[in-house]
Amino acid sequence: MKLLRYGEAGAEKPGMLDAEGRLRDLSDHVGDISGAVLTPEGLSSLSAIDPASLPVVEGAPRIGACVGDIGKMVCVGLNYADHAAEAGMDIPPEPILFFKATSAICGPNDDIRIPRGSEKTDWEVELGIVIGKPASYVDEADAMDHVAGYCIVNDVSERAFQIERAGQWVKGKSADTFGPTGPWMVTADEVADPQALAMWLEVDGHRYQDGSTATMVYGVRHLVSYISQFMSLQPGDIISTGTPPGVGMGQKPPVYLREGQEIACGIEGLGTQRQRTIAWNA
Amino acid sequence: MKLLRYGEAGAEKPGMLDAEGRLRDLSDHVGDISGAVLTPEGLSSLSAIDPASLPVVEGAPRIGACVGDIGKMVCVGLNYADHAAEAGMDIPPEPILFFKATSAICGPNDDIRIPRGSEKTDWEVELGIVIGKPASYVDEADAMDHVAGYCIVNDVSERAFQIERAGQWVKGKSADTFGPTGPWMVTADEVADPQALAMWLEVDGHRYQDGSTATMVYGVRHLVSYISQFMSLQPGDIISTGTPPGVGMGQKPPVYLREGQEIACGIEGLGTQRQRTIAWNA
Repeated sequence: MKLLRYGEAGAEKPGMLDAEGRLRDLSDHVGDISGAVLTPEGLSSLSAIDPASLPVVEGAPRIGACVGDIGKMVCVGLNYADHAAEAGMDIPPEPILFFKATSAICGPNDDIRIPRGSEKTDWEVELGIVIGKPASYVDEADAMDHVAGYCIVNDVSERAFQIERAGQWVKGKSADTFGPTGPWMVTADEVADPQALAMWLEVDGHRYQDGSTATMVYGVRHLVSYISQFMSLQPGDIISTGTPPGVGMGQKPPVYLREGQEIACGIEGLGTQRQRTIAWNA
Repeated sequence: MKLLRYGEAGAEKPGMLDAEGRLRDLSDHVGDISGAVLTPEGLSSLSAIDPASLPVVEGAPRIGACVGDIGKMVCVGLNYADHAAEAGMDIPPEPILFFKATSAICGPNDDIRIPRGSEKTDWEVELGIVIGKPASYVDEADAMDHVAGYCIVNDVSERAFQIERAGQWVKGKSADTFGPTGPWMVTADEVADPQALAMWLEVDGHRYQDGSTATMVYGVRHLVSYISQFMSLQPGDIISTGTPPGVGMGQKPPVYLREGQEIACGIEGLGTQRQRTIAWNA
């Protein structure tokens, strides 16, 4: 299934795509696409619904983040060897974790607001893992049982705030609109191999990132298990698994976003995102 | 007002303390003590209620975290000069921020579970700021308008996970039960000066921390304004403002928590917390 949320920010309705790619409304069945619906039981109930029985949503509504009420977004740093190299950092001996503020999460095609005073706003296309079952001290062998599905996350990052403003990356990861998530969550049963997905990102038509989840240092199975040693993962949490090479900071010379640009990114089988960059107060 | 949540974990009810310190049930008025209730309008509605009209809650129910549905817990590192010294770190040139996983938040008297493999579980009594009004690029002059109230947070920390496990402190801050919060939120109008509150923490009756919010490096007003430059703060978010000297890591030699101990901590006017430490699988 491809599950998504559509409508105005803060008032999204649940939906799914049918086999023809049409948006169907799920409001009669669930209140939202969030934790309770993402459990094995919840997904099982949804999969029993005949999409043809659902109302088609007409027009082209705004698409929201594909999961609502996200409890936490756990991000993984330097998880592609080539990206670590371009960032001038070593491959970490174990996964680097940080959080993105949940208030930064937005729809996949929402405008990205350049923070005041920002000169180093950057992009990062990433594979997002959506958790469907509580995970605490999960073995790698069982880790995939806790994955509800996958989505695209653009882990938008302000490099000066992240690196030059006294410790801890969270400062550069958490501005409002720094977390486009979606367009939809594809359930795990429809993703044959999450470690073999092409992924790309373009700014104004120039392809900066052109990679594959095949080159992750720490893969999905390991990450779910690893993170669950330090904190419990809950249904509706998202793990954003790091970005391949090609971020702005890694260009020579570095290239950062300015107002009025267009970002497009995608991951094989998970759809595409498209954002405009605007001034904070536009 | 002193607002709190009582009852079984995950099913807490809203309550308030009356002038005699009796617990009164607010369920007929609000669904929970969370974002919508913590706004100026929400608090104004609550303050119009005559506590004597509310049912007294009999017995001694479990107390939950004093705020429900906490969107994010923003923590401030090394925010007391003497604590930075005992940690062997410099006073930061600007506040260090990190997040505690919201899944770590628990009631003020819940057991603290020592994570598997932990040898360095430590304590940190902290003043928590509860946000009541959205804050983005707020000036210091206006910062206090965004504060709904204050509470105690024990920012329980596993030092090896925090410092010795490859970058970013979040790994040592986020285990389930690592965020006792409460017992109640005291509304800002009842806290004359948040920078003049005595605070203390004892383990098995030995007083390790005995400080005051007066020695914070960056005070409440500055922190709300500062954090709002990097992310929006939302009603129901909590800022945990750092800990005074006396953590286990700072003892010579260091002292860490083991199973079967009792922690007590308090902040002047905000009540006390009391936790037992137990094995993860106890």
